[in-house]
Amino acid sequence: MDHTLTRVAVLGSTGSVGRQTLDVVRAYPDRFQVTGLAAGQNVELLLDQVAEFKPGLVCCVDPTSLRDRVDASVRVASLTEIACDPEVDVVVSAIVGKDGLDPTRAALEAGKCVALANKEAMVMAGNLLTQAARRGGGEIRPVDSEHSAVWQCLMGEDRDSVRRLILTASGGALRDLPVEALAEVSPEKALAHPTWQMGRRITVDSATLFNKGLEVIEARWLFDIPYEQIDIVLHRESIIHSMVEMVDGSLKAQLSLPDMRLPIQYALTYPERLPLDLLSVDFVKLGSLNFGRMDMERYPCLGVALAAGRKGGTYPAAIAAADEEAVAAFLDGHLRFTDIPHLLAGALDKHLPDTAASLSAIMDADAWGRRFAAEWIKEHSWT
Amino acid sequence: MDHTLTRVAVLGSTGSVGRQTLDVVRAYPDRFQVTGLAAGQNVELLLDQVAEFKPGLVCCVDPTSLRDRVDASVRVASLTEIACDPEVDVVVSAIVGKDGLDPTRAALEAGKCVALANKEAMVMAGNLLTQAARRGGGEIRPVDSEHSAVWQCLMGEDRDSVRRLILTASGGALRDLPVEALAEVSPEKALAHPTWQMGRRITVDSATLFNKGLEVIEARWLFDIPYEQIDIVLHRESIIHSMVEMVDGSLKAQLSLPDMRLPIQYALTYPERLPLDLLSVDFVKLGSLNFGRMDMERYPCLGVALAAGRKGGTYPAAIAAADEEAVAAFLDGHLRFTDIPHLLAGALDKHLPDTAASLSAIMDADAWGRRFAAEWIKEHSWT
Repeated sequence: MDHTLTRVAVLGSTGSVGRQTLDVVRAYPDRFQVTGLAAGQNVELLLDQVAEFKPGLVCCVDPTSLRDRVDASVRVASLTEIACDPEVDVVVSAIVGKDGLDPTRAALEAGKCVALANKEAMVMAGNLLTQAARRGGGEIRPVDSEHSAVWQCLMGEDRDSVRRLILTASGGALRDLPVEALAEVSPEKALAHPTWQMGRRITVDSATLFNKGLEVIEARWLFDIPYEQIDIVLHRESIIHSMVEMVDGSLKAQLSLPDMRLPIQYALTYPERLPLDLLSVDFVKLGSLNFGRMDMERYPCLGVALAAGRKGGTYPAAIAAADEEAVAAFLDGHLRFTDIPHLLAGALDKHLPDTAASLSAIMDADAWGRRFAAEWIKEHSWT
Repeated sequence: MDHTLTRVAVLGSTGSVGRQTLDVVRAYPDRFQVTGLAAGQNVELLLDQVAEFKPGLVCCVDPTSLRDRVDASVRVASLTEIACDPEVDVVVSAIVGKDGLDPTRAALEAGKCVALANKEAMVMAGNLLTQAARRGGGEIRPVDSEHSAVWQCLMGEDRDSVRRLILTASGGALRDLPVEALAEVSPEKALAHPTWQMGRRITVDSATLFNKGLEVIEARWLFDIPYEQIDIVLHRESIIHSMVEMVDGSLKAQLSLPDMRLPIQYALTYPERLPLDLLSVDFVKLGSLNFGRMDMERYPCLGVALAAGRKGGTYPAAIAAADEEAVAAFLDGHLRFTDIPHLLAGALDKHLPDTAASLSAIMDADAWGRRFAAEWIKEHSWT
């Protein structure tokens, strides 16, 4: 094996992060080799990707749909087989939601580097995943722009010298709408993120700032830092992706134009950097970087997410699952935008945590969150 | 020797950086030991420092003034003896002007870590000093806030992956004055720096932006990076001290409230960080960080400094010496503020560079710059 060749498996290859991962791979054919691709329902795109990148293993939700449509050299495998393939160096974990959890854990147990875009995994099971990484010798590399920023700022620094993390938040699609108008927000409006192009659920979660709460939980586990040392600041431009303050009062910030290829590529090439055709930030043209206070009244979902994180145990899994259902119901027109925090607050109130730190306890909490949400939606649906 | 004890010599202990170095030392009596102190004319303060920090070696411009005033345990020594003392780990080079050059070079040749605040040394003799460090195994640690920022941003990064450095500039005391009014500026006005408390010459050099030109030259040598890859951006708040852009488009910035103790302490404790009672930046209160274009018409001294840097050889030494004389004449009321760039442009035009890369060639260029300035001032003095 050429020592500069990185062998990559992409779990969730047809989603936003998965496709951008393959853009990075496409730009450096001599540096990367795709060993496995896994997708959900988008079989046509998956087949195109298989034809282009020629992985040894492939997977999708309905494996029969791949029959007779891939070469004999390509084997249909499970998510976990792809994640733990002895031929893979870096597993890009980009499946949205809880389905990414088990293969991510398996990859870490198998000693793989995991480029983690699936934030639910860390939110639901941060404790289990960090344990798995320690046990198996795996390494978690963040892909979320905020966590990649923190990670980049921590390069060469002693983790014990961190005073606090400052995650930045754009404020999402509805940041300039009067609070009174939030109840009438349409899915289209909530999906118009001011600075980032992302998937539908995460874009709505960015509008409610629930997503920022999940990021705080993820940061707590990724960087092993207490919640009290993680702050959020409103930063409309999404140029500073996050900051780290050290014990001597020195802050480091990581900045760039918003482009997910940067954190994806860095997670693949770390600690090296490869040239990327990302434009430089033009500070003169930009004029200013702006900051503001997080308005917790405008963003009640953020408060619920943070409370779930602080309660710990199965709370984050339950609340994240309830949120996924609530957002789906909002996008389907069954809930108002302002119903989402009420549903989440109810789930936080009613959840009975399981103190067993096990995957089954977490999956049970996830199922409970979905059931709670389904019932709540049935009661409150306005359509 | 206790492995956590750092033995420090301070060259220029009664100046601004020297006194702040001793503030840092005072805060951590178990971490630092002062082995030597050297000052210029301020013998009373030096004697106070000797009484407090009990160095083994001491030095000042007029050694006879110390006779019978220090304990028998304190030996009066030369600058170079203090810099090369086998008992010293870190030499803080904080003498302003060319007098710091020779002891700085000697310390690097002797394999010392040099915390370099004396920017003239690097400007005049960057080539010689980096060679001396390579030859002797010495290490140059920047103390200037801008260079410390770049250095901190480069921690853990491969130097070959740097796309560009961006030095920030506050714009100095006169940034909001109409260009037409600059001719009538008084020394008092030029000395009112908006964000930093510093010595008199550097404060005027900050008002003309000549200082920023010297910093570009210093950065070129410290980080071994071509001038074309060093940009300057106007940043009024002096919160972002400088930035580094990597080949993948990722930028890192180092930020803090303006306080020289931070870069001084970091240069003493690197790669470790020690707690410092420096307040956190309050981004919400701050509201915004602003950027603007460097107006080269407003700051002609900057252009001269950059041109001297690009010409290389003995040009920076000649121009820096001429500037020191010009600023002194301005502070003494013999020159107008707007005479300074004319004097410097004349020096740039008339200097005959010596291609020998030797200390004597550099000292000759320095002497030439001062003679040129003296004659120019005689011709143009308005008092």
